Amino acid sequence: MRAAIMRDRQLLVADMDSPEPQAGEVLVKTVACGICGSDLHALKHFDQFVEMSSGLGSSLEPGADLVMGHEFCVEVLDHGPDTQKLHPAGSLVCSVPMTMRQGAPMTVGYSNSVPGGYAEQMVLFEPMLLAVPNGLPADQAALTEPMAVGWHAVAKAGLTAGDVPLVIGCGPVGLAVISALKVQGVGPIIAADFSATRRELALAVGADIVIDPAEHSPYDSWRTAAAASAQSALAEANPLTGERQLPPGVFFECVGVPGVIDQMMVGAERGCRFVVVGVCMESDPIRPLLAISKELSLQFVLGYSPEEFALTLNHIAEGRMPVEPLITGHVGLDGVPQAFVDLGHPDRHAKIIVEPGRT
Amino acid sequence: MRAAIMRDRQLLVADMDSPEPQAGEVLVKTVACGICGSDLHALKHFDQFVEMSSGLGSSLEPGADLVMGHEFCVEVLDHGPDTQKLHPAGSLVCSVPMTMRQGAPMTVGYSNSVPGGYAEQMVLFEPMLLAVPNGLPADQAALTEPMAVGWHAVAKAGLTAGDVPLVIGCGPVGLAVISALKVQGVGPIIAADFSATRRELALAVGADIVIDPAEHSPYDSWRTAAAASAQSALAEANPLTGERQLPPGVFFECVGVPGVIDQMMVGAERGCRFVVVGVCMESDPIRPLLAISKELSLQFVLGYSPEEFALTLNHIAEGRMPVEPLITGHVGLDGVPQAFVDLGHPDRHAKIIVEPGRT
Repeated sequence: MRAAIMRDRQLLVADMDSPEPQAGEVLVKTVACGICGSDLHALKHFDQFVEMSSGLGSSLEPGADLVMGHEFCVEVLDHGPDTQKLHPAGSLVCSVPMTMRQGAPMTVGYSNSVPGGYAEQMVLFEPMLLAVPNGLPADQAALTEPMAVGWHAVAKAGLTAGDVPLVIGCGPVGLAVISALKVQGVGPIIAADFSATRRELALAVGADIVIDPAEHSPYDSWRTAAAASAQSALAEANPLTGERQLPPGVFFECVGVPGVIDQMMVGAERGCRFVVVGVCMESDPIRPLLAISKELSLQFVLGYSPEEFALTLNHIAEGRMPVEPLITGHVGLDGVPQAFVDLGHPDRHAKIIVEPGRT
Repeated sequence: MRAAIMRDRQLLVADMDSPEPQAGEVLVKTVACGICGSDLHALKHFDQFVEMSSGLGSSLEPGADLVMGHEFCVEVLDHGPDTQKLHPAGSLVCSVPMTMRQGAPMTVGYSNSVPGGYAEQMVLFEPMLLAVPNGLPADQAALTEPMAVGWHAVAKAGLTAGDVPLVIGCGPVGLAVISALKVQGVGPIIAADFSATRRELALAVGADIVIDPAEHSPYDSWRTAAAASAQSALAEANPLTGERQLPPGVFFECVGVPGVIDQMMVGAERGCRFVVVGVCMESDPIRPLLAISKELSLQFVLGYSPEEFALTLNHIAEGRMPVEPLITGHVGLDGVPQAFVDLGHPDRHAKIIVEPGRT
């Protein structure tokens, strides 16, 4: 089969053996696969990525071929041994990107032994397959995975009535968080990004107010919106001064670059909760005293549960999480290397979908 | 009156004007005042401390005299204008270290305009005064303030049944946290400190297991204790592997030195909650990826509410929070400069109490 392969730190398109389904696995044809920022990072900083993956319990061999792609929608081709054949051949399905071999979980898209979605075929673990409902197009269903990341982050935020969220960074992670906040019905949702394209996308998926940090402080904008939204009945008064206080903020870090958490700490009001979704792979200096003086809390989050993944697919299929605006391009396998280059420009693209069947 | 004054970055004992109570204030005689680690820090790194205080909303003039001391028990001498005289002269009282002037709060012990407890007399805000109950000795009542810090930290931890706490650092802050955990009835309480004296104090105030990090990893010890304490009925099994998981830990950072949070992140299990009570005044590098991969959360805490302060005094007076073991010395005002030196050796002292009436 054809695949976009990472070999010797370069992306190339070549033939390789099709995978063979093992016990409990199903052979599938890749219909659509989103390109994730983590894949761009893995290509650019492979050695660092290998080290990080090992910290996350994964094992990548630096010298071996790797087929990435973990945001996919696929069609069932054949059933391996010890399967229940729950989804007949021809079914359109999604899955969390993992399979189980000899009782051990294995990440699909970051493993040398099973190919990810930048290939014509894959093998997946049957119990994880979810039928795509409602005739949802495959390219939209493929975005279940990144949207589930946002859904999980919002779930971990433990939102309550009166919370006013601020989303820092409107790349795919930030857009997923905004979508999930919209489904949860909290607001106003304030979102900040330097890119005009991304701010437009933020509005398209549910942000109420978008901010260009080059023009305005996102934190000042948050304060203005929070003050306007706080109903006086809900806002607590300071027992000593009688002043009405702003509702504590819930800030989502969706950038993943050193220094952003510190900036957010400077901008936050007392009692603000941070949810850190952006994956910063470097050491990041914070000032504990700043966080202590405001009694801030930080919740770091990763991934999603299988239940959250299934719920997200349902939200997308029911039209509650609009993902179509995020899809800014489609390519075949031959277009993957160029797509990785194009995605480096945040003003041009959000999600490029790889369709291995596209010629 | 006599006072231990910080002047030109030096501690000296000299005469100064007695304070005059303003509207709502009461004149008191200082009976006992604990020396806090923050005071040691303020003396040693005064310029940094001034800058930090300004970040916390306080204002210290670098060139003016300062009388520190914010952990005190006092006797009422006289009532200023606009007071209700709720506590007659001769009453033994405690108070949160603040007064209100023209509607603005002012910290007692870190303000140039009102003296703290290292002086024979002080002025306090009448509505904040609490009678010392049960004939509790003044030196013990003076420790209400540092113990309230621990009480507040534990309250912010939101403990639930099955939580197994680990306290990193057994200085006064760590000991206060251990005492509060003991009152809450959670356990086993595991505590770590390099100092043998402090480990003994930790046992005296309620720790179940104490660890010398030079000999054993506190995190391995936590895992062993958590595994033993987790009842199989409560411990969740991994849905994929069937393995029983440890209860998520609650780790209290009570050291306040750069690098400790990162060490704790390395040692923690998935889902661990950190409560950061130690005040680190420097920049502190963390690795977000480490925190993300384990979905850690960090709650930074500061101070206590007036209600928590009152509750803590009650716990001490009722014998539920034993503070006597923490008192390792008493000095008069002339002994304050030497006490600041002595407190630099963690193996010799926990709390030294200043008694301005002592000769």
